[in-house]
Amino acid sequence: MSFSVAVSGATGYAGGEALRLAAGHPELDVRTVTANSNAGSLLGEHQPHLRRYANMQLQGTTAGNLAGHDVIFLALPHGASGAIAAELEATSPGSLIVDLGADHRLVDAASWAKFYGQGLPKSHHPGSWAYGLPELVLPAGKQRETLAGATRLAVPGCNVTAVTVAVAPLLAAGAIDPADLVAVLANGPSGAGKSAKTHLLASEILGSASPYGVGGVHRHQPEIEQNLNWSIGADPASGPIRLSFTPTLVPMARGILATISAKITAGTDPVALRAALTDAYADEAFVSVLPDGQWPSTAWTLGANSALIQLAVDERAGRVVVTSAIDNLVKGTAGQAIQAVNIALGIPETTGLSTQGVAP
Amino acid sequence: MSFSVAVSGATGYAGGEALRLAAGHPELDVRTVTANSNAGSLLGEHQPHLRRYANMQLQGTTAGNLAGHDVIFLALPHGASGAIAAELEATSPGSLIVDLGADHRLVDAASWAKFYGQGLPKSHHPGSWAYGLPELVLPAGKQRETLAGATRLAVPGCNVTAVTVAVAPLLAAGAIDPADLVAVLANGPSGAGKSAKTHLLASEILGSASPYGVGGVHRHQPEIEQNLNWSIGADPASGPIRLSFTPTLVPMARGILATISAKITAGTDPVALRAALTDAYADEAFVSVLPDGQWPSTAWTLGANSALIQLAVDERAGRVVVTSAIDNLVKGTAGQAIQAVNIALGIPETTGLSTQGVAP
Amino acid sequence: MSFSVAVSGATGYAGGEALRLAAGHPELDVRTVTANSNAGSLLGEHQPHLRRYANMQLQGTTAGNLAGHDVIFLALPHGASGAIAAELEATSPGSLIVDLGADHRLVDAASWAKFYGQGLPKSHHPGSWAYGLPELVLPAGKQRETLAGATRLAVPGCNVTAVTVAVAPLLAAGAIDPADLVAVLANGPSGAGKSAKTHLLASEILGSASPYGVGGVHRHQPEIEQNLNWSIGADPASGPIRLSFTPTLVPMARGILATISAKITAGTDPVALRAALTDAYADEAFVSVLPDGQWPSTAWTLGANSALIQLAVDERAGRVVVTSAIDNLVKGTAGQAIQAVNIALGIPETTGLSTQGVAP
Amino acid sequence: MSFSVAVSGATGYAGGEALRLAAGHPELDVRTVTANSNAGSLLGEHQPHLRRYANMQLQGTTAGNLAGHDVIFLALPHGASGAIAAELEATSPGSLIVDLGADHRLVDAASWAKFYGQGLPKSHHPGSWAYGLPELVLPAGKQRETLAGATRLAVPGCNVTAVTVAVAPLLAAGAIDPADLVAVLANGPSGAGKSAKTHLLASEILGSASPYGVGGVHRHQPEIEQNLNWSIGADPASGPIRLSFTPTLVPMARGILATISAKITAGTDPVALRAALTDAYADEAFVSVLPDGQWPSTAWTLGANSALIQLAVDERAGRVVVTSAIDNLVKGTAGQAIQAVNIALGIPETTGLSTQGVAP
Repeated sequence: MSFSVAVSGATGYAGGEALRLAAGHPELDVRTVTANSNAGSLLGEHQPHLRRYANMQLQGTTAGNLAGHDVIFLALPHGASGAIAAELEATSPGSLIVDLGADHRLVDAASWAKFYGQGLPKSHHPGSWAYGLPELVLPAGKQRETLAGATRLAVPGCNVTAVTVAVAPLLAAGAIDPADLVAVLANGPSGAGKSAKTHLLASEILGSASPYGVGGVHRHQPEIEQNLNWSIGADPASGPIRLSFTPTLVPMARGILATISAKITAGTDPVALRAALTDAYADEAFVSVLPDGQWPSTAWTLGANSALIQLAVDERAGRVVVTSAIDNLVKGTAGQAIQAVNIALGIPETTGLSTQGVAP
Repeated sequence: MSFSVAVSGATGYAGGEALRLAAGHPELDVRTVTANSNAGSLLGEHQPHLRRYANMQLQGTTAGNLAGHDVIFLALPHGASGAIAAELEATSPGSLIVDLGADHRLVDAASWAKFYGQGLPKSHHPGSWAYGLPELVLPAGKQRETLAGATRLAVPGCNVTAVTVAVAPLLAAGAIDPADLVAVLANGPSGAGKSAKTHLLASEILGSASPYGVGGVHRHQPEIEQNLNWSIGADPASGPIRLSFTPTLVPMARGILATISAKITAGTDPVALRAALTDAYADEAFVSVLPDGQWPSTAWTLGANSALIQLAVDERAGRVVVTSAIDNLVKGTAGQAIQAVNIALGIPETTGLSTQGVAP
Repeated sequence: MSFSVAVSGATGYAGGEALRLAAGHPELDVRTVTANSNAGSLLGEHQPHLRRYANMQLQGTTAGNLAGHDVIFLALPHGASGAIAAELEATSPGSLIVDLGADHRLVDAASWAKFYGQGLPKSHHPGSWAYGLPELVLPAGKQRETLAGATRLAVPGCNVTAVTVAVAPLLAAGAIDPADLVAVLANGPSGAGKSAKTHLLASEILGSASPYGVGGVHRHQPEIEQNLNWSIGADPASGPIRLSFTPTLVPMARGILATISAKITAGTDPVALRAALTDAYADEAFVSVLPDGQWPSTAWTLGANSALIQLAVDERAGRVVVTSAIDNLVKGTAGQAIQAVNIALGIPETTGLSTQGVAP
Repeated sequence: MSFSVAVSGATGYAGGEALRLAAGHPELDVRTVTANSNAGSLLGEHQPHLRRYANMQLQGTTAGNLAGHDVIFLALPHGASGAIAAELEATSPGSLIVDLGADHRLVDAASWAKFYGQGLPKSHHPGSWAYGLPELVLPAGKQRETLAGATRLAVPGCNVTAVTVAVAPLLAAGAIDPADLVAVLANGPSGAGKSAKTHLLASEILGSASPYGVGGVHRHQPEIEQNLNWSIGADPASGPIRLSFTPTLVPMARGILATISAKITAGTDPVALRAALTDAYADEAFVSVLPDGQWPSTAWTLGANSALIQLAVDERAGRVVVTSAIDNLVKGTAGQAIQAVNIALGIPETTGLSTQGVAP
């Protein structure tokens, strides 16, 4: 079977990655690529690594150009995807709309307002957008179950995915304290997009590491808290999760290494901690708990839809350290999107997605 | 159809990449992986990025363990592949043996002796090993034509591929002087393999560029000359090709950027130079001449079997500069191997190989 | 005035950096360089970046060759520096011995035994080695006061320095909970030394981030706890400090970015937190609290003896995040050593040390 | 003695490096720093690695603000430095004006017009600007001799320096053919300045190598030809030098590795080639020919004013390959400037400049 596909924001990093993966997906047929200022030019000028689509001409990012495709990827700045989605509701009721941006991730309007400075998009009807993190552990079952047949998919943030898969099972198992979580992430700059800003210049980032968005102000903060509150059956915004979250920029194009330190619940033994993770992911294709003692490197996930996890217990500190590695543009963005699309469309979940990283 | 596959040297970079690509190839079924000192352990300890094969147990690299598979990849140090190949001749006459190493590349025994310090392997019967660079332009036709039905494949070296695809068409067209070629390459250290040497440490290579094998002493020198002499119908060792070849190590894990400067033949105009390249590769899936003015980046080929080429004419200097970018482990090694295997086995040449690079 | 200097371990990274800084120090005169397996060769073969000393011949690392210099730097593996120091006690009683290694850092024998698997070196007489972190905030005064006139200096570990300078003032001020500290560090691989190990190869580290020594097992763990316990006047080994400490390797040759999240003591306001840091370092030449909102990059400290610090309060999480950036080989090793040497010898503390990083 | 210093373009990479080196120079006293759009802010906001000057306030880049200092560094875009210099002629006749930009480097107006698209700046009176490459080998003597007492210094381009020091002695000795030179350079992106352009983003450059300015169109082309023509006593623009010059961007913040391949003159033996280089630089503090067989790495020059050179003869190709490594911002820009300033002011040439690179 073949589904027609449109990708907006096709000149950016997220849009480009959606195209790269679509090119290897046997049932996705890219018919339309759109951009704003570059409409009219060929995709090959902007994404020369995508040889298959080099001669496709970019159209403008309008609801009209996107309408009518079976699957529509929105890889747009926040605000923009909501606006387009609202238009597509009328013209493309049967399309699967996949928002790679933030507009439809948060269910709590106050959190959205606090972190994004505006009201929820009018396209964000309560319950209409399925949150696309299939492996998210919930008190009963997993998030996957909400995705079959969905027609609106909100794709999680990259940092959010890395932290959520690492700790949700421990929280769901009651093994760690929801109010004493610390996460520090090493991030490649592609997560910041293809925008020409001085602090993202190669000269600034080569040979250097630096934090950003420190102190609870990063826009991924409320989304992580939402997920982790969900994992313990609590209210996404007012639940007990308290997380100190710090991303840091390091000199690799892609990749997120999340290191999370959590206070172990009294009476939980190390075996139970490990079992909480291995049990949660035993049947998962894309999330792997590595053999004891093997610590993940982000390079092992490059280009793959894998999340690799390891943990160690520090009895003296009374804490467990869990680390996870993902490719921010694959399991963190476009790969996760296609995984969710597969589920929504009823085709095998792993179609078109690899677990083999491009390493070294 | 499904072909059984064995990969020796499975813990190294070339062997690992053969496995990565085999995992995405619908007709290759990896049954056996071998190594020397690590026999008995699981592949996942050594190649953790290859999730699909993580639980395969490594066997010893012996002809016995490799025998009987439809396709046998030899990713071994020079000398070792010839020795194994000699044993396999008896036990596996019907197997397709694919040497990713150097043992069967050079047809001239004196060149082999000069650069490798030993006699040609006894497995290297004249004419028995097809040289696996399908796009190599010959005076009549291309190297591809020698590959259909081959049972012994010698896979070209990575630097060799980068230089050959860039200049063979210009030589074949008589557009450049065979005796005044200069090539300087920027190379990622994975080309040097997974051996623990001080000068390959991250601390030494991060933030630095340095040349190696300077002055005509690199082992890829005679192989490049062989190919380029072939492209003009000359003797591979005594032909007129004279090449100043300098590789340099730069801080990227993978990738080769080859910059070749050649003296333009009197009377050749710029249009003819460009046409020589575009004509040669117009129908090729894996070698692309970029639109005029777009210069290749190695990142655009990461993980892909692509070679990207561009050229510019410097009329004042009377020279043309051609550059090519490849992933040394894909089009430079394992991808090229699988491309040649596809041809040899009679399946579509592009099966299991992508032209989409993992960028950024 | 001019002091004669000997540097052992001169072919390694720490020894090399001591030489680099000595070359710019007007009162240090390097007379002797020693190594083990490379004795007899010229320093320029091993440290070609140190042009000034390129023609010095390496001698063997023996007490005899080191004896009699005014200042003797020991840049040796743990165990080795203690052994040499024991010999030098007899032959060089008047020399200033500076141990860049671990042998004389820990005062608690049980901690040493647990993390290093052996008894304290016999050269480690109680109280004989001054711990060389001048800016370490103590309940009364600073560590600097113990250094004037010292003849034995134990130079702190690199991770230790990064964490200590970031949080000691907050602990000393009672502003954070000593029992709920989490530190995650981004580390350049030069901290692991110039040893040829597979996991330190450029191919493995380029484009990747990975943790190591997770779960309280890293050898810097007890040293950090010692310092932080000192900062609150507690016993170095049995005091209340509980720290979850995770270093991670990232692709930069040098540099440490430490991110520390600590629970804020009830009743402490954000202004007091910041003041604790700025007050502590107001008069320091080498430790700077950046202007509010400016977050440190490790590149800003490259080659300099600087530590740069910033913090943010996360009121929702009830935690403060403090980050510090240093060059692991300068303020983390050889620069710190020379700073302590300056104090010990009674020359101005900043002599020969720069606060200007080599950026970008 | 102390000279008052003003630095314009103080927020950029070249200006920043001039400040970094001035901070370590005992006779330079930085009084004024200027910028355009950032006038009024503190230098520490823009150059946080320069702790010493963090609290200096930026003034506007006007002739008025710069006038009257003993030494005035112009680190400005081409066109801008000429305009300011023209104003300073009147107000600061006694100042030493040092142009780190291109405006006063080329003596041939036609070359300037061709590559920069405008007439020579009116400040560029014939013979008024000394060209600041002290080690440039001329038919009789060296360029150094023109610098003593100069009041106008044109600082060479970074690529220009790397190529010139590598081949000028061979040309001057008649050992290589001036009409068959090929240079390929590996360049860190800091050479392109601190401008926010998409192709200079870390995401684009990490893990990649790519050429730029190919085919004789780079603005450093005529300047290299000028120097090399000078080295053989020929006219700077119409002399016999023919050079194929290709810079390539590689993922390191700083550094240039130049690889030059040149046709050896008939009858020149390998010993004479090497001797031409070693003789030329035997007495130089900053240019070193490495011991035979040791090839330069750019990291060895990081932060240092060193140029490191090595060569090998390829008898089969009839060519010599010379490589040189420099830090583009030090020996390629600001270090070279200060070296020339030292000579112009009559203070020891090496004052304030190190030959010790910050490696690893």
